[in-house]
Amino acid sequence: MEIAQSLQQTPSSYIREILAAASDKNVISLAGGLPDEKTFPIDLMKPMLEQLSEMPHVFQYGETAGYGPLLAFLREYFQLPDSHMAMACTGSQQGLDLIARAYVNPGDKVVMEAPSYLGAMQVFGLVQANMLSVPQTETGPDLVALEECFVKHAPKMFYAVPDFHNPTGICWSLPTRKKVAELCIQYNVALIEDAPYRELRFTGDALPLVSDFCPQHSIVLRSFSKIASPGLRIGIVTGKRQYLEPLVKIKQGADLHSSVPMQALLLGLLEHQDFDQHIESIRVLYKSRYDVLYAELKAKLPDGCIVEGVDGGMFVWVTLPACDTFALAKSLLSNGVAVVPSPVFYADHSSTKSALRLNFTNAKPDDLKVAVTRLAKGLETQLSLQKDKVAAL
Amino acid sequence: MEIAQSLQQTPSSYIREILAAASDKNVISLAGGLPDEKTFPIDLMKPMLEQLSEMPHVFQYGETAGYGPLLAFLREYFQLPDSHMAMACTGSQQGLDLIARAYVNPGDKVVMEAPSYLGAMQVFGLVQANMLSVPQTETGPDLVALEECFVKHAPKMFYAVPDFHNPTGICWSLPTRKKVAELCIQYNVALIEDAPYRELRFTGDALPLVSDFCPQHSIVLRSFSKIASPGLRIGIVTGKRQYLEPLVKIKQGADLHSSVPMQALLLGLLEHQDFDQHIESIRVLYKSRYDVLYAELKAKLPDGCIVEGVDGGMFVWVTLPACDTFALAKSLLSNGVAVVPSPVFYADHSSTKSALRLNFTNAKPDDLKVAVTRLAKGLETQLSLQKDKVAAL
Repeated sequence: MEIAQSLQQTPSSYIREILAAASDKNVISLAGGLPDEKTFPIDLMKPMLEQLSEMPHVFQYGETAGYGPLLAFLREYFQLPDSHMAMACTGSQQGLDLIARAYVNPGDKVVMEAPSYLGAMQVFGLVQANMLSVPQTETGPDLVALEECFVKHAPKMFYAVPDFHNPTGICWSLPTRKKVAELCIQYNVALIEDAPYRELRFTGDALPLVSDFCPQHSIVLRSFSKIASPGLRIGIVTGKRQYLEPLVKIKQGADLHSSVPMQALLLGLLEHQDFDQHIESIRVLYKSRYDVLYAELKAKLPDGCIVEGVDGGMFVWVTLPACDTFALAKSLLSNGVAVVPSPVFYADHSSTKSALRLNFTNAKPDDLKVAVTRLAKGLETQLSLQKDKVAAL
Repeated sequence: MEIAQSLQQTPSSYIREILAAASDKNVISLAGGLPDEKTFPIDLMKPMLEQLSEMPHVFQYGETAGYGPLLAFLREYFQLPDSHMAMACTGSQQGLDLIARAYVNPGDKVVMEAPSYLGAMQVFGLVQANMLSVPQTETGPDLVALEECFVKHAPKMFYAVPDFHNPTGICWSLPTRKKVAELCIQYNVALIEDAPYRELRFTGDALPLVSDFCPQHSIVLRSFSKIASPGLRIGIVTGKRQYLEPLVKIKQGADLHSSVPMQALLLGLLEHQDFDQHIESIRVLYKSRYDVLYAELKAKLPDGCIVEGVDGGMFVWVTLPACDTFALAKSLLSNGVAVVPSPVFYADHSSTKSALRLNFTNAKPDDLKVAVTRLAKGLETQLSLQKDKVAAL
């Protein structure tokens, strides 16, 4: 049976190969995007886990938009305006997939930052969107390029990760947030704000969501995978009713609804008095790991490699002199450290810059140190080989 | 933001309106397809529910194809050949959606029985399939029409519910199963065998899956919503590796994977020594309800209405003299009984036959009796009104 054309155009996922290889015991993986299993608030979930057996209604078919008591709670928790609604999905990844399916025709234009989240490129690739890229600066997307893109292409939506971006870790500044919202309103472009790392801020104060400045022109994707548990697969989409109703319609066909016991479990966790404190403890833990990784990189990376600090999230982005980062990642893997090479994060390969994404949330400090030693050594070899090649030309 | 063209073509779901109205306390609903909440084996799930808090790994990201221990168990449970694999989905509904997305291009031909499962029509509608219909007989699809359709249209797949069909309750005979498999092989049509009601047989012996006769030309969708709990949202897809790998690829973008704690919970249930006995108790319960409904219908339905017996499942199909079944369903609703009118189950409305689908699994015997009284009265009024109209022409 021949597969659909939309799937034929999806490249095989190189990152999955790396992640598979990274499960080798002798490899320290900075490649994935996994939270540390030890942070999962299972103790806080335990009371509700045990209560579930007294709640037969959560085992019945449920509403497509989600478990009523959870949605009612979230309305307060996110302080949604009356015009808005929340919807529970099988991870925020499904929310993104539903948005793409509900709104994007083949060839429709979707703007993304370059680099961008791999899973978003997969989703928009499956609906055969025309993905346009706007370069990133230290404070968010290049605003001149973004406006030019809006003017020239009149895109349908702008997909962005303003808080501790995957893969770069960049957090948009307040002026950038305001300006992007203004541009989305001015040019009637829907902002798809993906905020899975938002709560993982370990330096400075939280900034408003970009969507707070354009609530009628945006949809927000929220994840509990980083602060609660990814295994539950419960993410939340919020936005004005008119934007969300088509998603509910697609979801009805896609899976009827997401697991109700898992939604009840999430509600129990969010209502637990110690949940805020739990998030704080994750921030402290991840900051300590980030501090180690950053200090090690600053001390050991060879000349020509640039690492910028981050204020939160799960990733650090190391910019390299132009090189074959796939070959580099492969050779690093054989040296016992897994990283993700930058090209997988670019929809438009012509704009690719050589870099590596490093994750710091799922390795212990000692492992982070060893990993950076291996990384620095591998980089030195690769870069000097390259210099030799250039010299020999 | 304008919705995608594929969604614009999806008609709004009339059945949802009926289901919403049916939640009125004064209405007895035979409209839904809900299992009885009291059948959920929560006692058998309780040990695993309590054990989950000792299993942190199930709260981490998991494999897209499913929770390893569950998939390993299912390989034995379903006695899969080496060439085959199992994959866990968010309900078997998601399995169907993934099949449509992985294989169907707009305009591709998909054959279905007429009438057919509403959720399948939604899914195939979303990928803009060209849905072709083959009429049903008492023993399954009309085999002559099916072969003609295969010859004339060379369809990509044939979607079918051979065990206790939704909506008609028909169970395909053994010769029909063999012949359909033979035709699928001969004309290279993939059989999509949806088997959510298979275990709900209360009379006679289980027949082989149709796919048992064409294992290399079929994908099977299995549900645990009727024998365990729909709220979990765990369904299983099985088929040869080559057929399933594209589904895994789509699922990675669609939601990364389904809830791991729910997959672990299902595994605990399937391994429980009392699970078979639990299924038997559901069969006994549903048979007793079916017996009441069938006897009442036989006794009370007005002339011209035909009800055929079923050997299992959740539905009875009542064929009516030609009439406006939407108007009928609406008037019945105001008389306190909810049913589903036949047109919603036909992709090709020109082939629609007047009928009603009645569910018997989620109403108590006394309610079933009252419901049939209301139904019979409403039918009598409607049919005599119609006779008057015809006479007046």
